Amino acid sequence: MVYGALDIGGTKIAGALIDSGGRLVARSQCATPAQGSAEELMAAVDAVLDDLAASPEWAGLSCLGVGCAGPVDTAAGTVAPVNIPSWRGFPLVDRVRAHARVPDGIRPVLVGDAVAMAAAEHWTGAARGVDNALCMVVSTGVGGGLVLNGSLHAGGSGNAGHIGHISVEQNGPLCPCGARGCVERFASGTAIAAHALESGWVPPAGAAPTAAAVAAAAREGDTRALAAYDRAARALAAGIAATIALVELDLVVIGGGVAQAGETLFGPLRRHLDGYAVLDFARGVPVVPARLALDAGLIGAAAAAATGLPGAGRGAPGLPAGRP
Amino acid sequence: MVYGALDIGGTKIAGALIDSGGRLVARSQCATPAQGSAEELMAAVDAVLDDLAASPEWAGLSCLGVGCAGPVDTAAGTVAPVNIPSWRGFPLVDRVRAHARVPDGIRPVLVGDAVAMAAAEHWTGAARGVDNALCMVVSTGVGGGLVLNGSLHAGGSGNAGHIGHISVEQNGPLCPCGARGCVERFASGTAIAAHALESGWVPPAGAAPTAAAVAAAAREGDTRALAAYDRAARALAAGIAATIALVELDLVVIGGGVAQAGETLFGPLRRHLDGYAVLDFARGVPVVPARLALDAGLIGAAAAAATGLPGAGRGAPGLPAGRP
Repeated sequence: MVYGALDIGGTKIAGALIDSGGRLVARSQCATPAQGSAEELMAAVDAVLDDLAASPEWAGLSCLGVGCAGPVDTAAGTVAPVNIPSWRGFPLVDRVRAHARVPDGIRPVLVGDAVAMAAAEHWTGAARGVDNALCMVVSTGVGGGLVLNGSLHAGGSGNAGHIGHISVEQNGPLCPCGARGCVERFASGTAIAAHALESGWVPPAGAAPTAAAVAAAAREGDTRALAAYDRAARALAAGIAATIALVELDLVVIGGGVAQAGETLFGPLRRHLDGYAVLDFARGVPVVPARLALDAGLIGAAAAAATGLPGAGRGAPGLPAGRP
Repeated sequence: MVYGALDIGGTKIAGALIDSGGRLVARSQCATPAQGSAEELMAAVDAVLDDLAASPEWAGLSCLGVGCAGPVDTAAGTVAPVNIPSWRGFPLVDRVRAHARVPDGIRPVLVGDAVAMAAAEHWTGAARGVDNALCMVVSTGVGGGLVLNGSLHAGGSGNAGHIGHISVEQNGPLCPCGARGCVERFASGTAIAAHALESGWVPPAGAAPTAAAVAAAAREGDTRALAAYDRAARALAAGIAATIALVELDLVVIGGGVAQAGETLFGPLRRHLDGYAVLDFARGVPVVPARLALDAGLIGAAAAAATGLPGAGRGAPGLPAGRP
């Protein structure tokens, strides 16, 4: 028996067959024709499915998870990824189901990419065995997914855990989403680099002004670079503290490109969290780096499908324990 | 069969026996000796229990819910109400269980007062039949409780839904809790009255400077009074939008003294919510007044006990439908 998984983002379309321990037994990938027509995009997805179906393990396919960049609408089975403009309300679930090699009995399960990452970290990563966790991706954007009472909490449309777009500064700067003072507006890699540049930081000759370059400067003591990470860490801390107050958490897991800055991010983040999560029940929640990297989207899509989202956590069979 | 309920606050200690339709069939109440010793307080609780136990319906007692002003620790069975100073880590569950008339088979179920209010509104009030709801109390403080996937989500220590202490202004004014820019700091009745006074509003001769007096002035067009409610509404909207983004909601219910201002609060609140809850999945969540008033704490404590918190929603028998 294997779980099928797709992971569709603005850069790549990946597919895999995954065993019940969370290991990849087959994998396929192509570049996303992000500026292509809706049908050119779907042809790329079909090609990845063709590739997987050619694997001998395909015969044991028991479910199929489809992770996709958000926003998604899991109730409708449609997607409208911000960075894939030709897919707006695209009926991805129906189109995957219509693929000639997808067996009739398999109903594809759609999941947003950040929720998939949470499912993956809960199955075989840093949140394994944890009943209440927030798993975040801090990268070009800021996303997240929630595990509550031991199950993925995806929400009615699959968008729960959307921590990047909660306001931590009600009169703050306008966010592209239309609201003000969203966490993402302070803590994304883009925001970190922009803030460092605005305060006078200059990247080394020949280097691009990325969040990673700002982190390197911060490690060398550059005060403007340190300030940019401190500002990001504060917004993340306020958002995380809000999440703890609202649902009670046992653990926070942070992955994504910006989290690669390590203690440059996690140090000030933990310090600011001590300042915002002050009520007894909210204190001392550990914040740790994600364990899974490149394949988290695939592993999480498989996990979501195996536990039967939507509706996971209520009568769903659950997953076998992942590998340690 | 009846459900027993206690509701312990800084002003009164109430008790009731409640039938399976959510109706009170017996009731007892006394003033809280809030500045009394821990044992004087417990004696008052015991007296209310004695009173209930004298009712013929007591023989049919099937469970006993204990609602208490927070913070509570439902895992430990202890309470430390902010406005009852002599109870700090007080073992309320054990003490109620030890009452001579509480049958051996009955294990009291502790629940925080705001979570109890949510349980009540979900059982027989404005959130009846709704699977995902935030129910708030906006009064001297700001509290809340969450219903997720059709069940009360109380959190591991019973404090989930704590929306009054999420920060909507990360560098905002210090809150007595120790954090900055908490919703309560802007939206409590105390905060509304204080802000109106600071901006030059003067209550009518002989009237106390309460949030209700500010609401009356706002209805007459006083711009400072209107501004105080607008400021409260903005903070509530930012907090509610954050909750929607994090867990996805179908409904928001608001009760408590400040909500009695009606459209003076709800009008600007809905307008600001349109500005913060802007993502497709977050738009258009209805915000309505609470339906239950004085007895919500009792009804909710009974509901929490009947559904078997902690752990409600997983294998709990559930409640019969409440009265329409």
